[in-house]
Amino acid sequence: MPRPPLPDDVVRFLAEPHPAVVATLRPDGGPHCVPTWYDWIDGEVLLNMDRSRKRLEYLRRDGRVALTVMDSDDWYSHVALIGDVAEVRDDPDLADIDRLAMRYNGRPYYNRERDSVTALVRPTRWATWGARFAGL
Amino acid sequence: MPRPPLPDDVVRFLAEPHPAVVATLRPDGGPHCVPTWYDWIDGEVLLNMDRSRKRLEYLRRDGRVALTVMDSDDWYSHVALIGDVAEVRDDPDLADIDRLAMRYNGRPYYNRERDSVTALVRPTRWATWGARFAGL
Repeated sequence: MPRPPLPDDVVRFLAEPHPAVVATLRPDGGPHCVPTWYDWIDGEVLLNMDRSRKRLEYLRRDGRVALTVMDSDDWYSHVALIGDVAEVRDDPDLADIDRLAMRYNGRPYYNRERDSVTALVRPTRWATWGARFAGL
Repeated sequence: MPRPPLPDDVVRFLAEPHPAVVATLRPDGGPHCVPTWYDWIDGEVLLNMDRSRKRLEYLRRDGRVALTVMDSDDWYSHVALIGDVAEVRDDPDLADIDRLAMRYNGRPYYNRERDSVTALVRPTRWATWGARFAGL
Protein backbone atom coordinates (compact mmCIF):
# COMPACT_ATOMS: atom_id res chain seq x y z
CA MET A 1 0.00 0.00 0.00
CA PRO A 2 1.39 3.45 -0.90
CA ARG A 3 2.22 6.10 1.68
CA PRO A 4 0.71 9.61 1.95
CA PRO A 5 0.23 12.18 0.62
CA LEU A 6 -3.04 10.99 -0.89
CA PRO A 7 -3.99 11.92 -4.47
CA ASP A 8 -6.45 14.79 -4.89
CA ASP A 9 -9.25 12.48 -6.04
CA VAL A 10 -8.94 10.39 -2.88
CA VAL A 11 -8.87 13.50 -0.70
CA ARG A 12 -12.01 14.79 -2.43
CA PHE A 13 -13.72 11.44 -1.77
CA LEU A 14 -12.74 11.47 1.91
CA ALA A 15 -14.12 15.01 2.23
CA GLU A 16 -17.58 13.64 1.40
CA PRO A 17 -19.63 12.18 4.30
CA HIS A 18 -19.45 8.47 3.45
CA PRO A 19 -20.15 5.44 5.64
CA ALA A 20 -16.98 4.28 7.39
CA VAL A 21 -15.80 1.48 9.64
CA VAL A 22 -12.88 1.79 12.05
CA ALA A 23 -10.86 -1.20 13.21
CA THR A 24 -8.90 -1.20 16.46
CA LEU A 25 -7.11 -3.85 18.52
CA ARG A 26 -8.67 -5.50 21.54
CA PRO A 27 -6.51 -6.09 24.62
CA ASP A 28 -5.89 -9.68 23.47
CA GLY A 29 -4.58 -8.36 20.14
CA GLY A 30 -7.60 -9.48 18.13
CA PRO A 31 -9.38 -7.08 15.77
CA HIS A 32 -12.52 -5.09 16.55
CA CYS A 33 -14.46 -3.01 14.05
CA VAL A 34 -17.48 -0.74 14.18
CA PRO A 35 -19.21 1.86 11.96
CA THR A 36 -18.12 5.42 12.60
CA TRP A 37 -18.58 8.98 11.50
CA TYR A 38 -15.32 10.63 10.46
CA ASP A 39 -14.02 13.81 8.89
CA TRP A 40 -10.86 14.45 6.92
CA ILE A 41 -8.98 17.51 8.15
CA ASP A 42 -5.56 18.57 6.91
CA GLY A 43 -4.40 15.05 6.18
CA GLU A 44 -5.74 13.48 9.36
CA VAL A 45 -8.89 11.55 10.23
CA LEU A 46 -11.11 13.02 12.94
CA LEU A 47 -13.00 10.42 14.98
CA ASN A 48 -15.17 11.10 18.00
CA MET A 49 -16.75 8.82 20.57
CA ASP A 50 -18.42 8.79 23.93
CA ARG A 51 -15.93 8.21 26.74
CA SER A 52 -17.72 4.95 27.61
CA ARG A 53 -16.89 3.33 24.26
CA LYS A 54 -14.63 0.27 24.27
CA ARG A 55 -12.76 1.51 21.22
CA LEU A 56 -11.48 4.53 23.18
CA GLU A 57 -9.86 2.12 25.64
CA TYR A 58 -8.54 0.07 22.73
CA LEU A 59 -6.97 2.92 20.77
CA ARG A 60 -5.40 4.38 23.90
CA ARG A 61 -3.79 1.00 24.58
CA ASP A 62 -2.60 0.49 21.00
CA GLY A 63 -2.87 3.39 18.57
CA ARG A 64 -2.81 1.29 15.40
CA VAL A 65 -6.10 1.67 13.53
CA ALA A 66 -7.54 0.92 10.11
CA LEU A 67 -10.36 2.86 8.49
CA THR A 68 -12.47 1.80 5.53
CA VAL A 69 -14.52 4.54 3.86
CA MET A 70 -17.19 3.24 1.48
CA ASP A 71 -18.83 5.11 -1.39
CA SER A 72 -22.38 5.96 -0.29
CA ASP A 73 -23.68 4.87 -3.70
CA ASP A 74 -21.55 1.73 -4.11
CA TRP A 75 -20.23 0.36 -0.84
CA TYR A 76 -17.71 -1.92 -2.52
CA SER A 77 -15.86 1.14 -3.86
CA HIS A 78 -13.76 2.22 -0.93
CA VAL A 79 -10.68 3.88 0.44
CA ALA A 80 -8.74 1.84 3.00
CA LEU A 81 -6.46 3.73 5.37
CA ILE A 82 -4.00 2.37 7.90
CA GLY A 83 -2.64 4.75 10.49
CA ASP A 84 -1.79 5.66 14.04
CA VAL A 85 -3.55 7.72 16.64
CA ALA A 86 -1.73 11.05 16.77
CA GLU A 87 -3.82 12.66 19.52
CA VAL A 88 -6.67 11.88 21.90
CA ARG A 89 -8.35 14.92 23.42
CA ASP A 90 -11.51 15.82 25.30
CA ASP A 91 -14.25 17.60 23.37
CA PRO A 92 -15.95 19.47 26.26
CA ASP A 93 -17.84 21.96 24.07
CA LEU A 94 -18.97 19.19 21.67
CA ALA A 95 -17.34 21.11 18.83
CA ASP A 96 -15.96 17.98 17.17
CA ILE A 97 -19.06 15.80 17.53
CA ASP A 98 -21.18 18.73 16.30
CA ARG A 99 -18.89 19.04 13.29
CA LEU A 100 -19.51 15.36 12.51
CA ALA A 101 -23.26 15.56 13.19
CA MET A 102 -23.57 18.59 10.90
CA ARG A 103 -21.58 16.78 8.23
CA TYR A 104 -23.69 13.60 8.34
CA ASN A 105 -27.09 14.78 9.61
CA GLY A 106 -27.13 18.53 8.96
CA ARG A 107 -27.79 19.41 12.61
CA PRO A 108 -25.83 19.51 15.89
CA TYR A 109 -25.48 16.34 17.95
CA TYR A 110 -28.70 15.48 19.77
CA ASN A 111 -27.20 14.58 23.15
CA ARG A 112 -25.78 17.72 24.76
CA GLU A 113 -24.70 15.67 27.82
CA ARG A 114 -22.34 13.49 25.80
CA ASP A 115 -18.95 12.93 27.41
CA SER A 116 -17.25 13.52 24.10
CA VAL A 117 -13.71 12.45 23.20
CA THR A 118 -11.87 13.03 19.92
CA ALA A 119 -9.12 10.97 18.33
CA LEU A 120 -6.99 12.16 15.42
CA VAL A 121 -5.54 9.45 13.21
CA ARG A 122 -2.56 10.05 10.95
CA PRO A 123 -2.60 7.73 7.92
CA THR A 124 0.59 5.87 7.08
CA ARG A 125 -0.76 3.78 4.18
CA TRP A 126 -3.71 4.04 1.81
CA ALA A 127 -5.39 2.04 -0.95
CA THR A 128 -8.46 2.34 -3.15
CA TRP A 129 -10.73 -0.28 -4.69
CA GLY A 130 -13.74 -0.40 -6.97
CA ALA A 131 -15.45 1.38 -9.82
CA ARG A 132 -15.29 4.83 -8.26
CA PHE A 133 -11.50 4.72 -8.33
CA ALA A 134 -10.98 2.71 -11.49
CA GLY A 135 -9.52 5.70 -13.28
CA LEU A 136 -6.92 6.55 -10.64
CA MET B 1 -20.19 -8.92 24.30
CA PRO B 2 -22.47 -11.98 24.60
CA ARG B 3 -21.59 -15.38 23.17
CA PRO B 4 -23.57 -17.34 20.55
CA PRO B 5 -26.15 -18.59 19.85
CA LEU B 6 -27.46 -15.37 18.29
CA PRO B 7 -31.08 -14.27 18.81
CA ASP B 8 -33.49 -15.00 15.97
CA ASP B 9 -33.82 -11.32 15.03
CA VAL B 10 -30.05 -11.03 14.60
CA VAL B 11 -29.93 -14.23 12.55
CA ARG B 12 -32.71 -12.90 10.30
CA PHE B 13 -30.75 -9.67 9.83
CA LEU B 14 -27.56 -11.54 8.94
CA ALA B 15 -29.49 -13.61 6.40
CA GLU B 16 -30.19 -10.40 4.45
CA PRO B 17 -27.49 -9.23 1.99
CA HIS B 18 -26.16 -6.19 3.84
CA PRO B 19 -22.90 -4.29 3.38
CA ALA B 20 -20.17 -5.73 5.57
CA VAL B 21 -16.57 -5.03 6.51
CA VAL B 22 -14.13 -7.69 7.69
CA ALA B 23 -11.14 -6.90 9.89
CA THR B 24 -8.07 -9.10 10.01
CA LEU B 25 -4.57 -8.79 11.48
CA ARG B 26 -1.56 -7.77 9.43
CA PRO B 27 1.73 -9.60 9.99
CA ASP B 28 2.86 -6.77 12.32
CA GLY B 29 -0.29 -7.28 14.43
CA GLY B 30 -1.98 -4.09 13.28
CA PRO B 31 -5.58 -4.11 12.03
CA HIS B 32 -6.70 -4.22 8.41
CA CYS B 33 -10.29 -3.88 7.22
CA VAL B 34 -12.06 -4.06 3.88
CA PRO B 35 -15.64 -4.31 2.55
CA THR B 36 -16.77 -7.86 1.86
CA TRP B 37 -19.68 -9.94 0.72
CA TYR B 38 -20.69 -12.57 3.24
CA ASP B 39 -23.40 -15.14 3.88
CA TRP B 40 -24.65 -16.61 7.12
CA ILE B 41 -24.88 -20.42 6.99
CA ASP B 42 -25.71 -22.60 9.97
CA GLY B 43 -24.18 -20.28 12.51
CA GLU B 44 -21.03 -19.49 10.52
CA VAL B 45 -19.97 -16.63 8.26
CA LEU B 46 -19.02 -17.55 4.70
CA LEU B 47 -16.39 -15.28 3.16
CA ASN B 48 -14.77 -15.70 -0.23
CA MET B 49 -11.79 -14.02 -1.85
CA ASP B 50 -9.42 -14.32 -4.73
CA ARG B 51 -6.27 -16.20 -3.79
CA SER B 52 -4.22 -13.06 -4.46
CA ARG B 53 -5.91 -11.07 -1.67
CA LYS B 54 -3.76 -9.95 1.25
CA ARG B 55 -6.48 -10.82 3.73
CA LEU B 56 -6.22 -14.50 2.79
CA GLU B 57 -2.56 -14.42 3.86
CA TYR B 58 -3.54 -12.52 7.00
CA LEU B 59 -6.33 -14.84 8.14
CA ARG B 60 -4.21 -17.92 7.47
CA ARG B 61 -1.50 -16.44 9.69
CA ASP B 62 -3.87 -15.41 12.49
CA GLY B 63 -7.47 -16.62 12.33
CA ARG B 64 -8.92 -13.90 14.55
CA VAL B 65 -11.36 -11.76 12.59
CA ALA B 66 -14.08 -9.18 13.24
CA LEU B 67 -17.05 -8.59 10.97
CA THR B 68 -19.35 -5.57 10.99
CA VAL B 69 -22.64 -5.98 9.10
CA MET B 70 -24.47 -2.70 8.47
CA ASP B 71 -28.17 -2.22 7.76
CA SER B 72 -28.50 -1.36 4.06
CA ASP B 73 -30.99 1.39 4.95
CA ASP B 74 -29.18 2.78 8.01
CA TRP B 75 -25.49 1.96 8.09
CA TYR B 76 -25.08 2.96 11.72
CA SER B 77 -27.41 0.10 12.74
CA HIS B 78 -25.14 -2.90 12.73
CA VAL B 79 -24.23 -6.32 14.01
CA ALA B 80 -20.63 -6.71 15.17
CA LEU B 81 -19.21 -10.23 15.26
CA ILE B 82 -15.87 -11.41 16.60
CA GLY B 83 -14.75 -14.88 15.68
CA ASP B 84 -12.14 -17.31 14.44
CA VAL B 85 -11.52 -18.87 11.07
CA ALA B 86 -12.80 -22.44 11.30
CA GLU B 87 -11.88 -23.53 7.78
CA VAL B 88 -10.14 -22.26 4.64
CA ARG B 89 -10.90 -24.22 1.49
CA ASP B 90 -10.54 -23.89 -2.25
CA ASP B 91 -13.67 -23.10 -4.26
CA PRO B 92 -12.68 -24.63 -7.63
CA ASP B 93 -16.22 -24.76 -9.06
CA LEU B 94 -16.95 -21.16 -7.90
CA ALA B 95 -19.94 -22.49 -5.96
CA ASP B 96 -19.30 -20.24 -2.97
CA ILE B 97 -18.53 -17.04 -4.88
CA ASP B 98 -21.56 -17.70 -7.08
CA ARG B 99 -23.68 -18.08 -3.97
CA LEU B 100 -22.48 -14.67 -2.79
CA ALA B 101 -22.85 -13.05 -6.23
CA MET B 102 -26.42 -14.38 -6.52
CA ARG B 103 -27.19 -13.10 -3.04
CA TYR B 104 -25.85 -9.59 -3.66
CA ASN B 105 -26.21 -9.13 -7.44
CA GLY B 106 -28.75 -11.72 -8.53
CA ARG B 107 -26.37 -13.36 -11.02
CA PRO B 108 -23.33 -15.67 -10.97
CA TYR B 109 -19.88 -14.17 -10.48
CA TYR B 110 -18.63 -12.43 -13.61
CA ASN B 111 -15.07 -13.75 -13.61
CA ARG B 112 -15.13 -17.49 -14.33
CA GLU B 113 -11.31 -17.58 -14.10
CA ARG B 114 -11.27 -16.47 -10.47
CA ASP B 115 -8.91 -18.44 -8.23
CA SER B 116 -11.57 -18.62 -5.56
CA VAL B 117 -10.92 -19.38 -1.88
CA THR B 118 -13.51 -19.64 0.89
CA ALA B 119 -13.10 -18.97 4.60
CA LEU B 120 -15.65 -19.98 7.22
CA VAL B 121 -15.68 -17.90 10.39
CA ARG B 122 -17.19 -19.15 13.64
CA PRO B 123 -18.43 -16.27 15.81
CA THR B 124 -17.41 -16.25 19.46
CA ARG B 125 -18.95 -12.89 20.44
CA TRP B 126 -21.66 -10.65 19.00
CA ALA B 127 -23.21 -7.24 19.61
CA THR B 128 -25.85 -5.04 18.01
CA TRP B 129 -26.18 -1.28 17.81
CA GLY B 130 -28.64 1.27 16.43
CA ALA B 131 -32.31 1.83 15.71
CA ARG B 132 -32.84 -1.43 13.87
CA PHE B 133 -32.00 -3.37 17.04
CA ALA B 134 -33.39 -0.99 19.63
CA GLY B 135 -36.15 -3.41 20.53
CA LEU B 136 -33.89 -6.40 21.13
